[in-house]
Amino acid sequence: YGKNTIKFLRLHREGKKHFVKEVEVCTHLRLTSVHEYLDGNNSFVIPTDTIKNIVLVLAKKNGIPTLEQFAIDICKHFMTTFCQVAYVKTYVQEVPWQRLHENGVPHVHSFICVPDGIRFCEVEQCRNGPLVVFAGVKDLKLMKTTQSGFEGFYKNEHTTLPERNDRILCGELFCKWSYGECRDIDFDCTWNKIRECILEAFAGPPDCGEYSPSYQKTVNCIQMCILSKVPQVQIIETVLNNTFYNVVDMTNLCLTNNKEVLVPVETPYGSCACTLGRK
Amino acid sequence: YGKNTIKFLRLHREGKKHFVKEVEVCTHLRLTSVHEYLDGNNSFVIPTDTIKNIVLVLAKKNGIPTLEQFAIDICKHFMTTFCQVAYVKTYVQEVPWQRLHENGVPHVHSFICVPDGIRFCEVEQCRNGPLVVFAGVKDLKLMKTTQSGFEGFYKNEHTTLPERNDRILCGELFCKWSYGECRDIDFDCTWNKIRECILEAFAGPPDCGEYSPSYQKTVNCIQMCILSKVPQVQIIETVLNNTFYNVVDMTNLCLTNNKEVLVPVETPYGSCACTLGRK
Amino acid sequence: YGKNTIKFLRLHREGKKHFVKEVEVCTHLRLTSVHEYLDGNNSFVIPTDTIKNIVLVLAKKNGIPTLEQFAIDICKHFMTTFCQVAYVKTYVQEVPWQRLHENGVPHVHSFICVPDGIRFCEVEQCRNGPLVVFAGVKDLKLMKTTQSGFEGFYKNEHTTLPERNDRILCGELFCKWSYGECRDIDFDCTWNKIRECILEAFAGPPDCGEYSPSYQKTVNCIQMCILSKVPQVQIIETVLNNTFYNVVDMTNLCLTNNKEVLVPVETPYGSCACTLGRK
Amino acid sequence: YGKNTIKFLRLHREGKKHFVKEVEVCTHLRLTSVHEYLDGNNSFVIPTDTIKNIVLVLAKKNGIPTLEQFAIDICKHFMTTFCQVAYVKTYVQEVPWQRLHENGVPHVHSFICVPDGIRFCEVEQCRNGPLVVFAGVKDLKLMKTTQSGFEGFYKNEHTTLPERNDRILCGELFCKWSYGECRDIDFDCTWNKIRECILEAFAGPPDCGEYSPSYQKTVNCIQMCILSKVPQVQIIETVLNNTFYNVVDMTNLCLTNNKEVLVPVETPYGSCACTLGRK
Repeated sequence: YGKNTIKFLRLHREGKKHFVKEVEVCTHLRLTSVHEYLDGNNSFVIPTDTIKNIVLVLAKKNGIPTLEQFAIDICKHFMTTFCQVAYVKTYVQEVPWQRLHENGVPHVHSFICVPDGIRFCEVEQCRNGPLVVFAGVKDLKLMKTTQSGFEGFYKNEHTTLPERNDRILCGELFCKWSYGECRDIDFDCTWNKIRECILEAFAGPPDCGEYSPSYQKTVNCIQMCILSKVPQVQIIETVLNNTFYNVVDMTNLCLTNNKEVLVPVETPYGSCACTLGRK
Repeated sequence: YGKNTIKFLRLHREGKKHFVKEVEVCTHLRLTSVHEYLDGNNSFVIPTDTIKNIVLVLAKKNGIPTLEQFAIDICKHFMTTFCQVAYVKTYVQEVPWQRLHENGVPHVHSFICVPDGIRFCEVEQCRNGPLVVFAGVKDLKLMKTTQSGFEGFYKNEHTTLPERNDRILCGELFCKWSYGECRDIDFDCTWNKIRECILEAFAGPPDCGEYSPSYQKTVNCIQMCILSKVPQVQIIETVLNNTFYNVVDMTNLCLTNNKEVLVPVETPYGSCACTLGRK
Repeated sequence: YGKNTIKFLRLHREGKKHFVKEVEVCTHLRLTSVHEYLDGNNSFVIPTDTIKNIVLVLAKKNGIPTLEQFAIDICKHFMTTFCQVAYVKTYVQEVPWQRLHENGVPHVHSFICVPDGIRFCEVEQCRNGPLVVFAGVKDLKLMKTTQSGFEGFYKNEHTTLPERNDRILCGELFCKWSYGECRDIDFDCTWNKIRECILEAFAGPPDCGEYSPSYQKTVNCIQMCILSKVPQVQIIETVLNNTFYNVVDMTNLCLTNNKEVLVPVETPYGSCACTLGRK
Repeated sequence: YGKNTIKFLRLHREGKKHFVKEVEVCTHLRLTSVHEYLDGNNSFVIPTDTIKNIVLVLAKKNGIPTLEQFAIDICKHFMTTFCQVAYVKTYVQEVPWQRLHENGVPHVHSFICVPDGIRFCEVEQCRNGPLVVFAGVKDLKLMKTTQSGFEGFYKNEHTTLPERNDRILCGELFCKWSYGECRDIDFDCTWNKIRECILEAFAGPPDCGEYSPSYQKTVNCIQMCILSKVPQVQIIETVLNNTFYNVVDMTNLCLTNNKEVLVPVETPYGSCACTLGRK
């Protein structure tokens, strides 16, 4: 049980310059007791209202240096304060405020919301177990308009899909990875580096791109790129939900549509999920 | 990988009387091969477009006698047809069309959408393993305006919640259960019986209700009621996401608000999840 | 300017029997002053926080006998209390709680949310003008699986739609009507009567239905039915957003699909809006 | 009547470099005839399917040089082709794809979705009337963490809001403006200039900001800024839906919260709408 979507903004001021971190936090606990379920005896139950208070108090006291450190602080607090807690999990997601710029000059206290992929993290701990730290990005929508195909697949009497070597690849990416030993990780720097890996592996070189023979291979390329460039990452889970773009058949309208007008097929949509770790 | 939200309507006619089943289907596969990820070799990959075709063909051929039977048909088809499939999972969710009635007379071909809880099922199978059938209800919103409280909970310096013995209990229920041996189960009849158990255990007797000392206890009551009355059910997972109703303090407005005007607190919201099985 | 989505629950008790009305209220004002816009002088501005307080206070004092009466109360309050108000509009929408029944017996304090069409009303008034009362229903999803076609339409070189005399008609209805003289209207009874008109005009007789040659004609039938049966209604605005159901072509899959498997086309969707009044 | 959310992507290639425009189009017509409503005679009705075809054909033939020009093309086509059309309105909204950059180098065919405000336009025409062109931005979320207050407002017995001279101003902006004479307008350039006006007027100078005494004044500043800097704009409609941030009272938790931890109040939310034109 726990509290979901505890939304708040942590404002930090350095003179006239303001820094904002707006987050949504979900904190869930598993207790050692079962009396609340069986007998209605609540004596070990930490109210979800108290969970919310603790999250806000820790934000006030410690600030939010990084999402990951904040989630670690919350988990540690519950584990050390409440002996009835058997397991704690905290998820933190960021509202993507970016500082406004006017003619290249950063504004001291104005921000714009730019949701081009949402950063999140998750930290969990069992009593007597290690802290496990995950970080990730979700709702990252990417498209490449060529250098993608799907050929040589398995066919039988239910196959109607034609082979294609030049299609649009468009999808929403979810990537979540675990860190191994968490000491001395610069979580912000690492997260940004991983986001760059994702974009590079998806798009390929800027002047020509790189051919993707399937969603599966693209997912694998992203994962291999991260594992090779970011040694702190142990395991990566990736989900690519893809929107197919259908070339509109205009022969009835006496026109030849050379992949110029395409209609997105939002449902049903394909999904490709893969988890990859180090040996 | 697989195909999500394959939406379609299956229309069945008996003379002038029409019967509709509109569903959303998600079917996911895990293959024995990994070449599509590593080498871009797609020769074992069943396109998600083919998955969609197979779902539609099975709907055409077999109809949808029940959601569960339809999901079983899909899983069996993939397992028996494709030797490269290591695992298959199918989720089916129903659009809640109900037959219209005029002055108590059922209409032969007109329907209204009544989303008071969505019925779904999920069937999965590993190669050489048993078919596992789950069924459930989600988005079921219930409220009781008394006979609910929360007292005697754990308190420390971060506790600000007062004890209450007469609050509103309002929440959205998710219940998912597994069936044991699936032969000879009347899935429709059983699902309806379980829905009745949920409502009865939540509300208590119609003339007085039954006191709930916590969300946890209510969840447990629902699960115990189902396990005792429906022998086919093996394990039940229940999630109750609750909306707290805050009694508006009107003392500044020179009024005494005797729990007459309450404001729903939609975020953050509490959540209570429990899984219960038979011994 | 104003306050939107003021959500609250009004609980009324008669002994052990509880009655709930949960609503969302939006109240907007136009003031006679413009200084707040031009000079930042707020001296005539009623804060939206005060607007919210007034709505809650009126709910506490008067209850919510009907949505329409409550909206009338709010408008009258603002017009009579604040001479700087030039115009006031209040929209009230109901959360569709229905009393739970167990084996036909109504429960004293338990409710289930059944969103099969949302009831709303809107009341507006200009200073020195009459109160104008609208009521309506939205998000009412209806379907008929036959007795609908579309033929004889205008054709040119951009027409690819075939003529059909047996298609599925499925849509989401929005209906909003104005009442003339509001004295002595039983708003609940009238609203229920109009909802019945809508369902009857949409579906036709329960044993055979009635043929619809177009969305336009169905919309007109609904409006004519209401105007003929409910004399209090002056003008009706109706919007029918329709989802087209595409018969899946299964010839490539070696099957004949006799309108048994259909796929909903949710985007793009057609829309038909019409406003009809009495002569 | 008409067709809503016609979604498609228009791909334009210049050698290896690709340009994408993905849009949602809604086109509505009013006909001179009423027979389709009264008699079910569809002979003048242009099917919404044909409307969709025409939109796609125009995209294929003309491309989408700007949203506004494309909407103008559509309206002109309907007005000149169909004499039964009395009125036509077309709304076009853009999916915010941005070209990916790798180390500052633009990618030839890869894009990322960045929804920091959605660009749209609307064009309408009555038979024998002028084309009226509107453009706008919606879903633009902005925040300033100081230089905002609300004081000196009207007070009575229902007022509980305290005066504040240092609050967070956070809101979602909708701005829609009309162009006068449309010849020789560079729609892209003008739109970008207006977006900059909005950001500047909202935020004030980057080193210190500018004090906002109310939402109303901020809305007026935005409108005045646009009217003074962009002569092509005739009338501006602006809606600012604001999210209030509540400073969490931590005195019960033995902490002094100096506006460091704030909770967003998403419902109810205030709304301020104003339309301003030239004399």
